[in-house]
Amino acid sequence: MATEGELISALATIFKKDDPRLLVGIGDDGAVISANTQNLVAATDMAVENVHFRREWSTLSQIGAKLTAANLADIFAMGGEPKYLLVSAGLPSGFTVEQVEELAQGIKSEADHVGASVVGGDISKSEKLVISIAAFGSIDKPIQRSGAKVGDAVILSNITGPSAAGLHQLNEGKSVSLYISAHKKPIVRYDLARKFRDVSAMCDVSDGLLSELNHIVNASGVGIELDRALFSDVPGYAELVLTAEAEGIDVWQWVLAGGEDHAFVATTSSQIPDGATVIGRVVRGSQVKVIGLLELPDEGYKHF
Amino acid sequence: MATEGELISALATIFKKDDPRLLVGIGDDGAVISANTQNLVAATDMAVENVHFRREWSTLSQIGAKLTAANLADIFAMGGEPKYLLVSAGLPSGFTVEQVEELAQGIKSEADHVGASVVGGDISKSEKLVISIAAFGSIDKPIQRSGAKVGDAVILSNITGPSAAGLHQLNEGKSVSLYISAHKKPIVRYDLARKFRDVSAMCDVSDGLLSELNHIVNASGVGIELDRALFSDVPGYAELVLTAEAEGIDVWQWVLAGGEDHAFVATTSSQIPDGATVIGRVVRGSQVKVIGLLELPDEGYKHF
Repeated sequence: MATEGELISALATIFKKDDPRLLVGIGDDGAVISANTQNLVAATDMAVENVHFRREWSTLSQIGAKLTAANLADIFAMGGEPKYLLVSAGLPSGFTVEQVEELAQGIKSEADHVGASVVGGDISKSEKLVISIAAFGSIDKPIQRSGAKVGDAVILSNITGPSAAGLHQLNEGKSVSLYISAHKKPIVRYDLARKFRDVSAMCDVSDGLLSELNHIVNASGVGIELDRALFSDVPGYAELVLTAEAEGIDVWQWVLAGGEDHAFVATTSSQIPDGATVIGRVVRGSQVKVIGLLELPDEGYKHF
Repeated sequence: MATEGELISALATIFKKDDPRLLVGIGDDGAVISANTQNLVAATDMAVENVHFRREWSTLSQIGAKLTAANLADIFAMGGEPKYLLVSAGLPSGFTVEQVEELAQGIKSEADHVGASVVGGDISKSEKLVISIAAFGSIDKPIQRSGAKVGDAVILSNITGPSAAGLHQLNEGKSVSLYISAHKKPIVRYDLARKFRDVSAMCDVSDGLLSELNHIVNASGVGIELDRALFSDVPGYAELVLTAEAEGIDVWQWVLAGGEDHAFVATTSSQIPDGATVIGRVVRGSQVKVIGLLELPDEGYKHF
């Protein structure tokens, strides 16, 4: 089986095209296209039943909202403002209008948080439920993964790991907790992402903090040094530590390798935006290290 | 089970939003958004294994090209010019890089016909292969389904039915024919669609000619009268009749109800574009009739 990186690299080669209007193509959170007077940003995400969600765990509204959040977070992670969504869905036979409406309400409720709206889509049959959303919006200056500079601070919008903690609890047979809710539908800090417009590089944490920081490290040709002690200041960290202790889990497994929280991590030499927490800095090198941790967990969730 | 029409109507209600920049929303082939100086058009299509294609019948390249064609045809059917594609794919375990590349090459080859390019996407796991493409492009004046006027000619770009004929032959155990090729990957007349820019209403034929004309009839508040005799002049009709006779099938089943050819059907009061054939006219009323046919086949392929 190929790795996702191998696949994306093969695809970037196949789809490569010289186009002066295409400012950012394959390989970042979204594509950026120059319109006559305004740049466009676009991104897409797919969610497949029993891969990304379980219908016995999540309501259709949560499933719709979670995929929408992932998609909106991609646009914000580019420095853009999402405006419009296209939704395609493959529905199992027997799916009712009420079920489609519940899925749609979930999508709409999340899109409403940022003022985006669904403008089209496609409905087809499928054995398992599958949903794909394409989002597009406006953008002034794309924030790419390649912009991190030695000396920049590394900042985080909110703690990573709640979704992984919730998944752990679900697998342990629990059914109600703050983190289970976060797994079913993360609370994405779009408000903070909007304050991250002057940063030098940014990702939303889809696959795990280490994984995203490695994207920045590789694209920018730098190293990153996080400091374990600085995480105490990140909103949500203290509560997560308590839960990890209660569950007998190393909290750093969740914080560094847990995916799907869609927290925003960025590097910056500008003033630290209100509400963001500094968790480390950009250094010379080519790796992500954490001061105070001898061993790092595996990179995190692999979509593929 | 709900009908597609019921679903779309329910969804249009949920997603309704007042937005002066949204010129065309849910319910047509694509959405049209006004940018500062240029309007944008966007559309999405999904293809699911064993619903839209069979991997034992079609190569991955054909599967990619066919879905791309459906997507590009939607943009042209709005009067737009497709520029950029986002592709999300759910891949079965064991899928190789070579297989992903073959799928991608199929998408690229079709996109190349019109100068469009893939600028992003998402890859995930899935039990069955599923692909969703979102296309967007530029548009001056949207051509909607609601623009048909009494007295307009109804014009067709090329004969509908080849894909249905090919599917019939595949089901009969044949493996090689012109129509089987058309089923695996239709030849879409993008060149003619570009000449249909002054028409009053337009659809690409995804679900069958009757089905698409009913969309125009309902949206425009008119009737349509096709003339059986006029079809003799449509390129490809004579050959299709011969094959239908050889297979013991009523050719009108294929022509009127066969989907997935992505021929372009339009109504117009302007000069008939070179290469297009007049097949009837817009009349007062609220139905689609065919002079010379007593009984019409069922509307055609239902995606849902």
